[in-house]
Amino acid sequence: MTIDQSPQPFALAIHGGAGTIDASLLTPELEDAYHAGLRTALLAGRDVLAAGGSALDAVTAAVIALEDEPLFNAGRGAVFTADGTQEMDAAIMDGRTRAAGAVAGLFGPRNPILAARAVMERTDHVMLIGDSALALARRAGLAMEEAPYFFTQARWDALQAELAFRASGAPDDGNEQRRHGTVGAVARDRHGNVAAATSTGGMTAKAVGRVGDSPVIGAGTFADNATCAISATGHGEHFIRHVVAHEIAARMRWGGQSLAEAADAVVIDQLGPIGGSGGLVAVDSAGRVTLPFNCAGMYRGIAQADAPLLTAIHREEYRVSR
Amino acid sequence: MTIDQSPQPFALAIHGGAGTIDASLLTPELEDAYHAGLRTALLAGRDVLAAGGSALDAVTAAVIALEDEPLFNAGRGAVFTADGTQEMDAAIMDGRTRAAGAVAGLFGPRNPILAARAVMERTDHVMLIGDSALALARRAGLAMEEAPYFFTQARWDALQAELAFRASGAPDDGNEQRRHGTVGAVARDRHGNVAAATSTGGMTAKAVGRVGDSPVIGAGTFADNATCAISATGHGEHFIRHVVAHEIAARMRWGGQSLAEAADAVVIDQLGPIGGSGGLVAVDSAGRVTLPFNCAGMYRGIAQADAPLLTAIHREEYRVSR
Repeated sequence: MTIDQSPQPFALAIHGGAGTIDASLLTPELEDAYHAGLRTALLAGRDVLAAGGSALDAVTAAVIALEDEPLFNAGRGAVFTADGTQEMDAAIMDGRTRAAGAVAGLFGPRNPILAARAVMERTDHVMLIGDSALALARRAGLAMEEAPYFFTQARWDALQAELAFRASGAPDDGNEQRRHGTVGAVARDRHGNVAAATSTGGMTAKAVGRVGDSPVIGAGTFADNATCAISATGHGEHFIRHVVAHEIAARMRWGGQSLAEAADAVVIDQLGPIGGSGGLVAVDSAGRVTLPFNCAGMYRGIAQADAPLLTAIHREEYRVSR
Repeated sequence: MTIDQSPQPFALAIHGGAGTIDASLLTPELEDAYHAGLRTALLAGRDVLAAGGSALDAVTAAVIALEDEPLFNAGRGAVFTADGTQEMDAAIMDGRTRAAGAVAGLFGPRNPILAARAVMERTDHVMLIGDSALALARRAGLAMEEAPYFFTQARWDALQAELAFRASGAPDDGNEQRRHGTVGAVARDRHGNVAAATSTGGMTAKAVGRVGDSPVIGAGTFADNATCAISATGHGEHFIRHVVAHEIAARMRWGGQSLAEAADAVVIDQLGPIGGSGGLVAVDSAGRVTLPFNCAGMYRGIAQADAPLLTAIHREEYRVSR
């Protein structure tokens, strides 16, 4: 099943992280669970779009579903820092107005993406960090959770493995999957508006206080009706240095490139050679989607109007479902 | 004195913030002090460039001088948050490699720009926030200061005035100068490399934890030898939403615009109409500089090879000095 590249009344694309997904650890049961998690998020977003709702509400709904699914590194199931804590980052942007909100270094709200949206909708600011973001989330009345809600044994084991790996003095094996993960969504609604949302627990065993590309507007998250909406996942530092999301928009606007040309150029040609492992999901203002990645796999899914849901993990045919 | 727009062996441009600088408060003595502060920073950076040093070292030296000068809102003399604390943000980027470092929500290091540089040079990360950035600064052996060092009566009075203004319920008068301020530098060295550095105390009476554009790579700070180096100052939220620094680089790279065309288009045509008050300093890879702003004034200065130092505040002839 290939992706329809004609203009669409509405479209949604999501990701649940990219990297070298170890096929030997991916049992059929686990693979099915990932597909199911992606499908749940697609349905949440598609319901909004099909009913004539906004791209902004659709990406919010899809990312909430991905945050709630412990398999993905955001919200419940977020990875642990080197100190054994969890710190979450999220951002959202509305292509209609370029309004944007971002949070970093946050722990508490069940859905960090709603904290980012509260920054956008309830403050004059774009980015709030740490306790300030938490205080806003409380004022906004967001659902809060304690550590046991966010805890998953698999992420805790991953932290112990990473710390043991570091302590062993073994050279970095470039296994990005062990450390990375992000979720995100982009959408184009029936009214021609686009939006993007991204949420992450960051890197396993990251330094406390490290901020990756997810909450950096222009790097991991960007939306502008004039061009496209982007949500990225991967080696965040490279994505920041290359201002990845805005670079794609700029290639479209000033270089006359199509969304797919621009996204491939950045992900494959620009980031690939420098070790900027990762990928992204993107939608243009006509509803065309593209989901490039330069590593072994990316948990991903697509929902277009009048089309079945598509989900995939590796470089493979999309699974088709209703 | 107009700015020479021919290619230059080396060039440095600096700013000490932009806004509606109230001429009635700017006594001749204070005006002279601003010019002297700018000149000190220009000399610090020019010495590096004239000796064949790197653009990276030049912007570092210039920003250190601006941070050390209490007249400017960065380092010593930083503004106060609504809670009466000080929180500083800074970023630096090397156009040779796109290596970058940024800190946000920092209090302690005498020169926040050196903390940003430590992130770039001593970690795998680009952005560190809060206590994590502080811990790195300590590990890097940076000079630390206590609150009395950073305190200035003028900034404290500005906080009280802003809080009183808010308490009065008066509508926002759009007086950006009362609240904003940033310092920054861009340089092109004899070897053809460019770099950018930006440092700020943020907005007077800002929410604790608010992060503006200064430490956001692509928004307030960007450098790439392929195009230019940029350091911005102004209404940070608008600068983030428009990914201002990278937008200028992208217009040059993909739209074939000159540095001056691109910078004017973004600052005057794009940000001006939406209330994105501010300005920026920019240098391209041939050493051409431009310093556009869309408000009443911007503390600014230029040093080019074999040319006198130029400094200005309002829309006026540059003061010339050696």
